Amino acid sequence: MLNYPNQIKKQYTKNINYANRGMDLEAIINDTNEYLLEHDIALIYKKPTPIGVVKVSYHDNKQVIDKAYFASQSTLDYNGLYKGKYIEFDAKHTNSRTSFPLSNIHPHQLKHIRSVIRHNGIVFLIIQINGLIYLLNGPDLINFIDNEKRKSIPYEFIKEYGYLLEYNYSKGLNYLKYVDLIGGLL
Amino acid sequence: MLNYPNQIKKQYTKNINYANRGMDLEAIINDTNEYLLEHDIALIYKKPTPIGVVKVSYHDNKQVIDKAYFASQSTLDYNGLYKGKYIEFDAKHTNSRTSFPLSNIHPHQLKHIRSVIRHNGIVFLIIQINGLIYLLNGPDLINFIDNEKRKSIPYEFIKEYGYLLEYNYSKGLNYLKYVDLIGGLL
Repeated sequence: MLNYPNQIKKQYTKNINYANRGMDLEAIINDTNEYLLEHDIALIYKKPTPIGVVKVSYHDNKQVIDKAYFASQSTLDYNGLYKGKYIEFDAKHTNSRTSFPLSNIHPHQLKHIRSVIRHNGIVFLIIQINGLIYLLNGPDLINFIDNEKRKSIPYEFIKEYGYLLEYNYSKGLNYLKYVDLIGGLL
Repeated sequence: MLNYPNQIKKQYTKNINYANRGMDLEAIINDTNEYLLEHDIALIYKKPTPIGVVKVSYHDNKQVIDKAYFASQSTLDYNGLYKGKYIEFDAKHTNSRTSFPLSNIHPHQLKHIRSVIRHNGIVFLIIQINGLIYLLNGPDLINFIDNEKRKSIPYEFIKEYGYLLEYNYSKGLNYLKYVDLIGGLL
């Protein structure tokens, strides 16, 4: 297995409370980023979903889209700026209780994660599994993929190498705490 | 007037060749970013235009957008990662030969530019004026706005504080040369 310092990862899960366990991960992250923006802590935005426009018309000199389809993002959904550093991440959810299927990550996204690491950006996934939310650092994800032949990441790996996040009703998800750690920003 | 080191800005304009002076600025920048991506120099992407979806239907289990409208970006159009640094910019074009109207920059974009500066990101505009293309650093733009009452930036200011960019048919626009300079990345 891989070696990685994880002294901060020893946490009690009993205090974790995601307010409503069924709360949508994307909504939690959007609320968190809004909090971070309002309090001038970090500038993190969700990229708009790219669309392919098929047909446009004009009404009162305004463009109206009459037909379009949703396209897939070749990068990750969220990016931005924190303490002068470039940050990018994606939110992934799995219903599996035992592992995170790598099919959840598109090949072009995986290529992009490798690029961000190479260019010294901070890149990670936020994974919701078993009702808990973990931050898995990009290099740990890539190490797993490059060293294991499995098509899914066992939950045990996520528990060991990921950082268990906590949710606070007013401040949202505490993911920047671990960005500080993985980015050496403390 | 403002003080700003600009020793690199003394250039001859006679060698500038934008291939086709009528070439669309956005196309030039997109081509440049594709070159930078392919050569693994920088990861800069144009954000998709946000849309407001009004009506969606399903055909063969695929979502089709039946009605939507284009919304305006509250940040700048391009952002990404270069040498570990966060970079964000917008491309602006004016037909005026004497000045760049500040009405080209939405108030929420201006607020965002100030935020990026505060969080130690690199932020700038690429301005096409008089058939030439300049990079105007965010702090220079903000200095102008905070110290002048004018509603447009005189061309003379852009010539003095901006960096005249050159276009190369295969490599695109050389804007990273000045990002190195303004970001202290040399």
